[in-house]
Amino acid sequence: MLSMIITPKFGDVDGLRHINNNVLPQWFELARNPIYRIFNPDYKFETWNLILAHIDFDFVEQMYFDQDVEIRSWVAKVGNSSFVVYQEAWQGGRLCVKGKTVVVDFDFENKKSVRIPDAERARLMEHFRELAE
Amino acid sequence: MLSMIITPKFGDVDGLRHINNNVLPQWFELARNPIYRIFNPDYKFETWNLILAHIDFDFVEQMYFDQDVEIRSWVAKVGNSSFVVYQEAWQGGRLCVKGKTVVVDFDFENKKSVRIPDAERARLMEHFRELAE
Amino acid sequence: MLSMIITPKFGDVDGLRHINNNVLPQWFELARNPIYRIFNPDYKFETWNLILAHIDFDFVEQMYFDQDVEIRSWVAKVGNSSFVVYQEAWQGGRLCVKGKTVVVDFDFENKKSVRIPDAERARLMEHFRELAE
Amino acid sequence: MLSMIITPKFGDVDGLRHINNNVLPQWFELARNPIYRIFNPDYKFETWNLILAHIDFDFVEQMYFDQDVEIRSWVAKVGNSSFVVYQEAWQGGRLCVKGKTVVVDFDFENKKSVRIPDAERARLMEHFRELAE
Repeated sequence: MLSMIITPKFGDVDGLRHINNNVLPQWFELARNPIYRIFNPDYKFETWNLILAHIDFDFVEQMYFDQDVEIRSWVAKVGNSSFVVYQEAWQGGRLCVKGKTVVVDFDFENKKSVRIPDAERARLMEHFRELAE
Repeated sequence: MLSMIITPKFGDVDGLRHINNNVLPQWFELARNPIYRIFNPDYKFETWNLILAHIDFDFVEQMYFDQDVEIRSWVAKVGNSSFVVYQEAWQGGRLCVKGKTVVVDFDFENKKSVRIPDAERARLMEHFRELAE
Repeated sequence: MLSMIITPKFGDVDGLRHINNNVLPQWFELARNPIYRIFNPDYKFETWNLILAHIDFDFVEQMYFDQDVEIRSWVAKVGNSSFVVYQEAWQGGRLCVKGKTVVVDFDFENKKSVRIPDAERARLMEHFRELAE
Repeated sequence: MLSMIITPKFGDVDGLRHINNNVLPQWFELARNPIYRIFNPDYKFETWNLILAHIDFDFVEQMYFDQDVEIRSWVAKVGNSSFVVYQEAWQGGRLCVKGKTVVVDFDFENKKSVRIPDAERARLMEHFRELAE
């Protein structure tokens, strides 16, 4: 499991005085940094090789401004050219949001997906967790 | 169908020089304004009665900085206390992103969902479109 | 004067139920698009030639979710290699925010500012407005 | 001095492959949390008593995706009903951005500024730094 602690900022809260739903995609993106590093150790955009095909979020409980949030991330599936990241947001002992991201190993020049190399595949599996459904 | 034209701003583009995935939740949120108005004609947060249970996005094509984007929105399903908004982002004649939002008619004081009143239900159905799947 | 109408989205409002201060930099950035077009007619990042040196914002009145906002933009000064954009945000007949942006004509490859060409200079002056102070 | 370490996320970078200018207001806002806590120890929006009158940013050096950023914050001036927060963003040993925020002790119900109480004033002065200019 990859864990990242995030402190909400004032503007993350909306008129309902809870964390706005659209903040979650940003927090989950940030928490995927270590996974992006596996494929792009030097973080160079010129040779970047990942693209997102899908993201989803289930909002289970409301989150608030006054407490830190922990984002937990796992790799839930590794296919031929894509993999699934499963993530959860926890605040004050409560599971508040869960979501999945489908990431594709992508050749931006030729605009097509490519097979995930074995080395990256092995690194991904270090964070594997099987999902129930 | 509800249609909204959105002009990308400089910072909507990321290091891959395409529109960042996390911009889409914001554009889709903005395009749901007319639907929020059905339930909250005066836009008062004190009596706000909608909460999101789920959002998802399928990224079909990349979008870029140099052209306006059209967000098209429909109501795809109306249940007892929740409904589904289906949305698409189009740029230059290409369908680039599609996604669904599950919106719940919610009593924030008692923290429970409530039945969608008939008047709001009828207004929602004006924007109905059946989804294939 | 350049004018742009912006519709606030739900998440632009913070826990104080007014438009969050950090939304303004985004709206002002969007409203500078026509000025960016003067220097980069095809909007290509590979040859982009502008960089920001300074931004500031004076918050005069609070803004809210329920009404559109007009951003008005002028060019307030044109120097050798930089110029100043002055902008105002209006809502419901009230001047709510004003701010300045210092934009530099910049050679990203050699990391140094360059003289603004006469053609661009003339185009900027079409939107000129002298500031009192 | 108050110090906060921030990890850039993928979307913080724009088409120029540096941190977008509009990310800085968000980072500086987050780094002001401890100062907001002085006035609002329980972080309740119902009794919130601070409003921003001004923010500005000087962009000295470009920042990039691949390294953490440190935000350093000081209180630069304390007036009757307002105070100035001075902040700097550092990356890789380089001072990249500096800026000031004018925060007003504000009575939202009566929409007028109020005198900063002595207790809060003393707490602010713990982070005082005199600015050269």
